Amino acid sequence: MYLRNLSEELIVEFISRSLLSKPGHGEYLFYPEDARDLLPRAPRILLSMDAYSISSLKLPWRDYSDIGWSSLSGAISDIVAKGGIPHACMIALGLPHTFKQEELEALIRGFREASEYYNVRVLGGDTNSTSDGWIAISTIGFTTARTPPSRSGLKVGDYIIVSGIYGAMGYVAKEGIEKSSGVDWVVKYTKRPLVKIEIGYVIENNYKYISASMDVSDGLSYTLYTMSKLSNCGIVLETPPLVPSELYEHCKGDEECLLEYSLHGGEEYGIVLGVKPEYKNLVQKDLEYFNIPYKVIGKAITKQGLYFHGKELPIYRYDQFRGWSLLTTSLP
Amino acid sequence: MYLRNLSEELIVEFISRSLLSKPGHGEYLFYPEDARDLLPRAPRILLSMDAYSISSLKLPWRDYSDIGWSSLSGAISDIVAKGGIPHACMIALGLPHTFKQEELEALIRGFREASEYYNVRVLGGDTNSTSDGWIAISTIGFTTARTPPSRSGLKVGDYIIVSGIYGAMGYVAKEGIEKSSGVDWVVKYTKRPLVKIEIGYVIENNYKYISASMDVSDGLSYTLYTMSKLSNCGIVLETPPLVPSELYEHCKGDEECLLEYSLHGGEEYGIVLGVKPEYKNLVQKDLEYFNIPYKVIGKAITKQGLYFHGKELPIYRYDQFRGWSLLTTSLP
Repeated sequence: MYLRNLSEELIVEFISRSLLSKPGHGEYLFYPEDARDLLPRAPRILLSMDAYSISSLKLPWRDYSDIGWSSLSGAISDIVAKGGIPHACMIALGLPHTFKQEELEALIRGFREASEYYNVRVLGGDTNSTSDGWIAISTIGFTTARTPPSRSGLKVGDYIIVSGIYGAMGYVAKEGIEKSSGVDWVVKYTKRPLVKIEIGYVIENNYKYISASMDVSDGLSYTLYTMSKLSNCGIVLETPPLVPSELYEHCKGDEECLLEYSLHGGEEYGIVLGVKPEYKNLVQKDLEYFNIPYKVIGKAITKQGLYFHGKELPIYRYDQFRGWSLLTTSLP
Repeated sequence: MYLRNLSEELIVEFISRSLLSKPGHGEYLFYPEDARDLLPRAPRILLSMDAYSISSLKLPWRDYSDIGWSSLSGAISDIVAKGGIPHACMIALGLPHTFKQEELEALIRGFREASEYYNVRVLGGDTNSTSDGWIAISTIGFTTARTPPSRSGLKVGDYIIVSGIYGAMGYVAKEGIEKSSGVDWVVKYTKRPLVKIEIGYVIENNYKYISASMDVSDGLSYTLYTMSKLSNCGIVLETPPLVPSELYEHCKGDEECLLEYSLHGGEEYGIVLGVKPEYKNLVQKDLEYFNIPYKVIGKAITKQGLYFHGKELPIYRYDQFRGWSLLTTSLP
């Protein structure tokens, strides 16, 4: 059964029934309304919009539920990086007529599972017919931070703290899809990227001590490069970020090998924080309180560029626009 | 020059420079951040998401700037109908490689002109590559209404007040695109649909007196049908809504002719209000204060269906999913 055999109303009805969050206390509007009402949960609103072509999220070991999950993870990550707690989202879909009913069901299940896991409500959305499937997700979150950290606030001397576990998507980029599909740990880490919502709390609680923050969606080297470039400084790495134990074995602990894989991935959705040196311990204490995997990987320096053991590192970018597997070199 | 000749960064840079609203008082985040921060402007937030395939917005007399304008008008209309003042939006785009640079510039100009006209800020968005262009717009607004009116609150005896001017898109649907392109007033009224933001004020000020509200995006008959069906009642029309003087001449003032054209259009973005009979004058006074064109066209009745002079009217729907010109009959 393909979507072209179903009416738009049936499709929208199905999505709404299985996905939409009911009005909460003090809220009134619900499906089939075109807008939803909600009350602020914290003094400051954070708003973001993320869109994907469905094919760019495809990996052989991802089914449509994994694609739904991955797209929602990417969307909320933008809010978390700015010290917000993602509260709700709207999802617009462009689906081909040839999309199968069970594919739609899997996609919606992925959204729902992510929505429940992250405690992010799906309030509504829109469905369109297209020849080339796409997903657009708008997320609203709230933060108590008086000044949410930007990407560009890094100061020389700041510690670079990186949350999350790196290297699996870098393995895919380096070794190729075919080889990667046979490697269990690579498949496990890239099938459904995980965002640690709790980092949002850490950032809003410590906004005065966090000079800069950005999530890792297009590869760790690109995030480090962007933050340092916008902040007019450089970064020296002293150690690789956290990696899966399997990558550590694969690299036999060699740091250059670990960096090679962990810098050039994508969709890890960890957060890179620039932390004022005098408050490093406070931020670390909070990260540990929330059980967030992290590592202090280096420091901001005056000289522009990204360095390890005195050597300048090349910058790669994981580019959604050009397809998931294509890496482009753009030396700083 | 086609988009495939430009890098994603150049495209995003161009869109951002020409479209994005700067941080206001008490706001911090700006391009190239993935999220924006803002402060609530009224106690209750309204959120909506609207998406279009670009081809569904195409009319021979619409250029890409008109398409940008039209999509933003449709997006904010959902907020206005619920008694909100649209404050800001995020725009995600899917653009084909074969899109020309001047087409992109026109599209962005249309967004910007609408954004300035409506005083709705564009905060950010996302750009993707696709074979089949699309636009997704998420809008945030604020309302002082304690209970924003739903579509389903109509009560027997309520007056039906309709804002906006109808008939031009109905003319296109009935007479066809080719004939319509030669008719000046039809082109004028359908080139750039206009939303009267001020209706948002009227609705939030009178939310206690307005039992139901819905905007007209898929044709007036479909809006009246949806509101009455969800409210378990019917509607009897006593007169057509406001129409262009040219349609009045075309119909020689015949009410059935006027209804035929004005009920079966789309994208007029007027608002249909159900108003409690004892407060009709108060609501009318407010509509007049804001110079909003409107007409009291009928009343909610017990018997389900849509009636005029004792005759039941057929319901048409302007269906984005199936292309702009296809009308489907779905008798109530």
